[in-house]
Amino acid sequence: MRTAVFDSGVGGLTVVKSLLEHSLFDEIIYYGDTARVPYGTKDPNTIIRYSLEALEFFNNFEIDLLIVACNTASAHAIDELRRKASFDVLGVIEPGVLALENRRVRKEDPVLVIGTRATINSKSYQNLLARRGYTNIQAVAAPLLVPLVEEGILEGVIVEESFKRYFDHLVPPKAVIMGCTHYPLMQEALGRYFNGAELVHSGEAIVEYLRKNGCESSGKETVMRFFASENVARLKQVASGWFQKEIL
Amino acid sequence: MRTAVFDSGVGGLTVVKSLLEHSLFDEIIYYGDTARVPYGTKDPNTIIRYSLEALEFFNNFEIDLLIVACNTASAHAIDELRRKASFDVLGVIEPGVLALENRRVRKEDPVLVIGTRATINSKSYQNLLARRGYTNIQAVAAPLLVPLVEEGILEGVIVEESFKRYFDHLVPPKAVIMGCTHYPLMQEALGRYFNGAELVHSGEAIVEYLRKNGCESSGKETVMRFFASENVARLKQVASGWFQKEIL
Repeated sequence: MRTAVFDSGVGGLTVVKSLLEHSLFDEIIYYGDTARVPYGTKDPNTIIRYSLEALEFFNNFEIDLLIVACNTASAHAIDELRRKASFDVLGVIEPGVLALENRRVRKEDPVLVIGTRATINSKSYQNLLARRGYTNIQAVAAPLLVPLVEEGILEGVIVEESFKRYFDHLVPPKAVIMGCTHYPLMQEALGRYFNGAELVHSGEAIVEYLRKNGCESSGKETVMRFFASENVARLKQVASGWFQKEIL
Repeated sequence: MRTAVFDSGVGGLTVVKSLLEHSLFDEIIYYGDTARVPYGTKDPNTIIRYSLEALEFFNNFEIDLLIVACNTASAHAIDELRRKASFDVLGVIEPGVLALENRRVRKEDPVLVIGTRATINSKSYQNLLARRGYTNIQAVAAPLLVPLVEEGILEGVIVEESFKRYFDHLVPPKAVIMGCTHYPLMQEALGRYFNGAELVHSGEAIVEYLRKNGCESSGKETVMRFFASENVARLKQVASGWFQKEIL
């Protein structure tokens, strides 16, 4: 099976990493809109427009599935994408919420969603959580975390103070949905801060979702093709680092 | 006189504020590329392309001058803009460097330039400073500062720790060129940290430059027109706040 992965930039590689670890696809075509990243600070209309332009890009390939790795695009553009696409489109919101059901989280436990301002404002996670019966939902936009990850600042005083600023007033959550592809890179610090809470990783959630829906490991190494709206070299460089193998 | 002001987003309003305070123009047409902001993390080619697209936008108006408020666009695209424009184009780099000559800064004093990664990588400030005879030039990219300002975090632990991270290893500068339109919003914290150093503000530097080149206060209130590639309402809202008057 051949899937496409769409992201606003390089962050979606955290999702690809999970897909690669489970060899779920023969081929992955990745497109990052690096020339217009970030999406999380942008308007809904802009996010939809950019996402539909990515769809045009993917129409050049014979793909079986489009995975929208970007939480912001998933939150705002998934309906439009599904309406226009000639293949299945899977975002990260639904898998992220369903992943809670595979974890020890009761419907009345406090659940926290963190994400970009656009993701949180869309209420996509919150609405789906409510529809699935969760009764104690908190949602916080944490815009500083993406630039921190981009700067390679994954722990230490600045990270801890940012967490305090965003999260100190909350009821301690039993589960945290990391609603942005960048957050898994600071998963250790988040784990320490949220002290034992279940952390939901979009990539792992997607893998669980796909497996549950009959997608099996091919056992073969996945062929990767990388595209970006600027600086594909940097995208490949980041991928080489994260996947710990040379990507040319 | 009618001028245009181009910026990657809302930050250029700090430059407009200075222009308004001195009533240097009858009319200012502002365009912020809010749908693609920030430029400071982007590639030179992308920055040039976006800047030339802004020029196409301004070609719809009869303007006497284009002021490029964005330091990143000034650093990378000023030559291309000048080549293509049918009016004068003024960036912030030259005024910023020349402003040092109006301050008590000797050529051998340590001068620091701070800016986005793209601005610092371009070496535009560093090269011009060297050509003007400065011999002790330091330049540091400080990518976290823009998101901090965007979050309204202008002082406190996170800001101080970020300053330490970026600047603690430097020779204490006698002057700091704030090479990004966002930085004047954290000027107080920068002033405390750099303890008495001259802080060069792009907006004030532009005013000094224009006056030196014969531009005089009109004495009349400047007519403003605001455009943005997304969410012009938010741009106007920010302008209303910063200029402390209602903008509709």
